[in-house]
Amino acid sequence: MTRFLPSITTHASMHTSVFIHPTAIVSPAAKLSPGVSIGAFCLIHDQVEIGENTTIEAYCELGHPSALAPELPLVIGAHSLIRSHSLFYQGSTFGERLATGHYVSVRELTTAGSNFPLGTKSDFQGHCRIGNFVRTHNNVHIGQKSVIGNFVWLFPDVLLTNDPNPPSETLFGPVIEDFAVIASKATLLPGVNIGEHAVIGAHSLVGINIDAGMFANGSPAKVICKASMLRMKNNPAIKAYPWNKRFARGYPEDLVQAWSI
Amino acid sequence: MTRFLPSITTHASMHTSVFIHPTAIVSPAAKLSPGVSIGAFCLIHDQVEIGENTTIEAYCELGHPSALAPELPLVIGAHSLIRSHSLFYQGSTFGERLATGHYVSVRELTTAGSNFPLGTKSDFQGHCRIGNFVRTHNNVHIGQKSVIGNFVWLFPDVLLTNDPNPPSETLFGPVIEDFAVIASKATLLPGVNIGEHAVIGAHSLVGINIDAGMFANGSPAKVICKASMLRMKNNPAIKAYPWNKRFARGYPEDLVQAWSI
Amino acid sequence: MTRFLPSITTHASMHTSVFIHPTAIVSPAAKLSPGVSIGAFCLIHDQVEIGENTTIEAYCELGHPSALAPELPLVIGAHSLIRSHSLFYQGSTFGERLATGHYVSVRELTTAGSNFPLGTKSDFQGHCRIGNFVRTHNNVHIGQKSVIGNFVWLFPDVLLTNDPNPPSETLFGPVIEDFAVIASKATLLPGVNIGEHAVIGAHSLVGINIDAGMFANGSPAKVICKASMLRMKNNPAIKAYPWNKRFARGYPEDLVQAWSI
Repeated sequence: MTRFLPSITTHASMHTSVFIHPTAIVSPAAKLSPGVSIGAFCLIHDQVEIGENTTIEAYCELGHPSALAPELPLVIGAHSLIRSHSLFYQGSTFGERLATGHYVSVRELTTAGSNFPLGTKSDFQGHCRIGNFVRTHNNVHIGQKSVIGNFVWLFPDVLLTNDPNPPSETLFGPVIEDFAVIASKATLLPGVNIGEHAVIGAHSLVGINIDAGMFANGSPAKVICKASMLRMKNNPAIKAYPWNKRFARGYPEDLVQAWSI
Repeated sequence: MTRFLPSITTHASMHTSVFIHPTAIVSPAAKLSPGVSIGAFCLIHDQVEIGENTTIEAYCELGHPSALAPELPLVIGAHSLIRSHSLFYQGSTFGERLATGHYVSVRELTTAGSNFPLGTKSDFQGHCRIGNFVRTHNNVHIGQKSVIGNFVWLFPDVLLTNDPNPPSETLFGPVIEDFAVIASKATLLPGVNIGEHAVIGAHSLVGINIDAGMFANGSPAKVICKASMLRMKNNPAIKAYPWNKRFARGYPEDLVQAWSI
Repeated sequence: MTRFLPSITTHASMHTSVFIHPTAIVSPAAKLSPGVSIGAFCLIHDQVEIGENTTIEAYCELGHPSALAPELPLVIGAHSLIRSHSLFYQGSTFGERLATGHYVSVRELTTAGSNFPLGTKSDFQGHCRIGNFVRTHNNVHIGQKSVIGNFVWLFPDVLLTNDPNPPSETLFGPVIEDFAVIASKATLLPGVNIGEHAVIGAHSLVGINIDAGMFANGSPAKVICKASMLRMKNNPAIKAYPWNKRFARGYPEDLVQAWSI
């Protein structure tokens, strides 16, 4: 563990626009870009690189040492927000505009793209790959070897498993393709493939591959119908899926236009 | 984020019976009633009002700023206990005798009555309404728009969802009526109504309304029988429900007498 | 709550090999063996005994006072690692080589043997008994009165319940015998017995006793076959269970030889 004294308020190389709360403990080796703000009681270890205008809230620990990635930094992209009580290991990389909830834990060797809102109490076990514009809600557990595409949604308590014969050494993470939606408390069994624009119902246990555009549900999950047959509950005239034909909040204007919403 | 220096041990207006740990950071704007105690490493923001004789344990962050409720304070009633590592946003209100577990997170615009014991690692997403004498166990997730009556019980890992067509903008929270019991790991789907004195079995997925006094179970949940037909496992001579005919711990004497236990 | 000032860097009786971070708050009554290291922003209460060469990471609170075990210390065995943001009450005892994840919470009157790796965000409700060489993954919830043998595995989101008639005062914890495996998101209902070398499938709801060596699965769980009939997914020539005939990582050499792997 890094053993610096607290209240390191200036670094020789630190830009004047960087703010470090006097109670925060920040390694002089950490690279803080202009406009970075480090909150109260934070602990920033050596192997950390934070992009400009990123805010780290209170009680966060960034760059926790890892024997599995001893040379690799934690990289947090610009314009990000790490909410309080969160923990990131060294050796993971996030693109611009990461926005976490609170009490988030991220182990080493997680790689994620840009524009990633990530819910409170989520748990990333590392050794996984995540695309751009993914959104994960609260208390999501991402096991090792998971592969998540772009524009994917994971709702509360979703669990991605990876060991078909627990305990074993041969882990197979689920693969979730672009635009797929995994509803609350669903469990994906090791190695399943969830196709593009597929939709998984709440509380499902998915042990089979789900083809692109299909809706699967149940425990064990079965394919029910094309997701495009589902209608909005409060307005059955509107198709619920593909969701990006009706939902645009938080996406860039040019993307939304390409989706022709 | 509030940027006060630590160790603010006195406020001009502070009652002598208030204790603030020297490592806590407390905004001078926070309103602390007589007998309030603030633990080590706490962070108390501007918009906070704490009732008398309330104890805030270590590592708690109260009044986290919210863009959705910028003018509203966090109000914690008198005689409350917030256990360590918990987080409350501004703009939520709790009555007297709140007692939380650890690592609890509460977002803005949660309104709860009095006498609320609330379990470790629970997650309140805000924009919800909770009655009096509710008890929620650990790792409960209360989605936005949830409405919970009085004397309701939620057991570990219960999940209240709200989006019938995820992702969408039209959220329908579940409604749980007085005295209802939701057993462990049950999921309530968006907008369902759980009637007064109804009982939901463990691990159920509830997608239908459950009438008052009924027992529902399964995934998907079906109505099984009247809850009053269930017997105590260790003493079948005693009806298990309505539970308030046989269980009185923690309720005021006059209430218990009215329940004629 | 203990109300010491921070930065207690020396105790009269403290061995020179003990390291206490200057921001940690450590009761002079706590017993720290040689080689103990206390991380930043820790809070160590009076009733704590930590074995030699044990590391406590940042933001940990050890020995949280408990009215249910006011005289009993928290005992952490030698060569242990408590990862950051964790919380242990007084009155629990762990053998040597405990290794926790982050944000772990342990209430009073938990008794565990040696060599216990225990995952991030797990929640031990106390009043439970755990053997040697148990491994629990992340976000596991161990209810009161649980009894767990030796060499048991619990995977993410497993829930052990204890109240057959919630709410009631008569709790029956599950009993899990040696070498049993409980896969992800399974729920054990109150008082069930999981036999030696039994295997429970992911997302199961177990309301019946499972005999030794059997594989049970489903919601509600039914016995499917002998666990020894299951084959490794990536190599069907190998039996998956008993797992200790094929999996040795982390166990002492003499044990593994006795298992004749």
